Amino acid sequence: MWISELARRGDVPVATVKFYLREGLLPPGEATGATRAHYDESHVRRLRLVRALVEVAGLRLDRVRAVLEAVDDESRPLHSVLGAAHTRLSVDDATVPVPDDARRRVSRLVRRWGWRVGRDSAHRDALARSLASLIELGASPTDELLDLYASGLHRAAEREVASVAGGDPATATERAVVGTLLLEPALLAIRRMAQEDVSARTLRRR
Amino acid sequence: MWISELARRGDVPVATVKFYLREGLLPPGEATGATRAHYDESHVRRLRLVRALVEVAGLRLDRVRAVLEAVDDESRPLHSVLGAAHTRLSVDDATVPVPDDARRRVSRLVRRWGWRVGRDSAHRDALARSLASLIELGASPTDELLDLYASGLHRAAEREVASVAGGDPATATERAVVGTLLLEPALLAIRRMAQEDVSARTLRRR
Repeated sequence: MWISELARRGDVPVATVKFYLREGLLPPGEATGATRAHYDESHVRRLRLVRALVEVAGLRLDRVRAVLEAVDDESRPLHSVLGAAHTRLSVDDATVPVPDDARRRVSRLVRRWGWRVGRDSAHRDALARSLASLIELGASPTDELLDLYASGLHRAAEREVASVAGGDPATATERAVVGTLLLEPALLAIRRMAQEDVSARTLRRR
Repeated sequence: MWISELARRGDVPVATVKFYLREGLLPPGEATGATRAHYDESHVRRLRLVRALVEVAGLRLDRVRAVLEAVDDESRPLHSVLGAAHTRLSVDDATVPVPDDARRRVSRLVRRWGWRVGRDSAHRDALARSLASLIELGASPTDELLDLYASGLHRAAEREVASVAGGDPATATERAVVGTLLLEPALLAIRRMAQEDVSARTLRRR
């Protein structure tokens, strides 16, 4: 297909497709002349992925690029690619050091559940940084609440990882990244609906 | 305290405090001369909240302002203020229409659980938009997975809302907003750790 058809299928303007091509987020098409190129279904798929990462997950272009690099690296085993993709997503711009007490709380959570989470996993820092802010603002969550998240999310993770690993290996990483990133807004929206319901039931009359 | 002390307590440069004052994110101090003003503990608290909303929750300044307006509006009952704060957070920049089939899936989820979620709640659109992207990318989550999220997050929401409503009414909204927003990165970090654990157990040898 030509670029105009690719743009239509991906539901973005042609200018956006050209921009993604220039930025290396889309692989070039097959050249059929000095200024024309031909695209296939793999381009449609990649274009939709880029659009979703930008529009739904709200990633900046440099993050999108890092995610795509992890997805495209076929030399690594799935667990390692997943870890790399996740880690690049979690890498924080904040240069603020993470307080030790928050970091220790994360370690205790990991130990309580016996999770295999790398010592230098970026997710530990992400959680510690968030806890440190909550503690500073006097809104520290209880261990009971953290454990409630941990048990529910681990049960969900078993489903999520199984659904990724079960299918076609070539697209496993792509599905994993999509599942991680694009399910996040869904998860947060469900959480807010649950809060709206509880709030409606318990606070409406105050 | 003077502005230098306020900046130190909030762990930001003086220039940042001045910027927040100029932008109306911090209320002015008590003027003690043509160019000097005096600040109190309420300023420290507000400064830390703004910093957390910007640095940890990653909100843009216009979103921070909208959240603070909801927090500061004392004329409304708690449920309504919470709803307003949440809605302003969920308002999406995307002008893309939400597909009907995704919206119907959200309605079915809400009906299955009997949740009291407003017909025009912004969270419905947020969830529908995320589901529509997943469907388009061939990674639609099963109803079983959505129900797993719903049950776990509703149980957590009962704790979350109770902890907000139980304390000092004057700071209830602030705590609710902080709890919603700053717990989100924590929740997502715990989810990624759970996925890392499941992936380590099941995929490492592939």
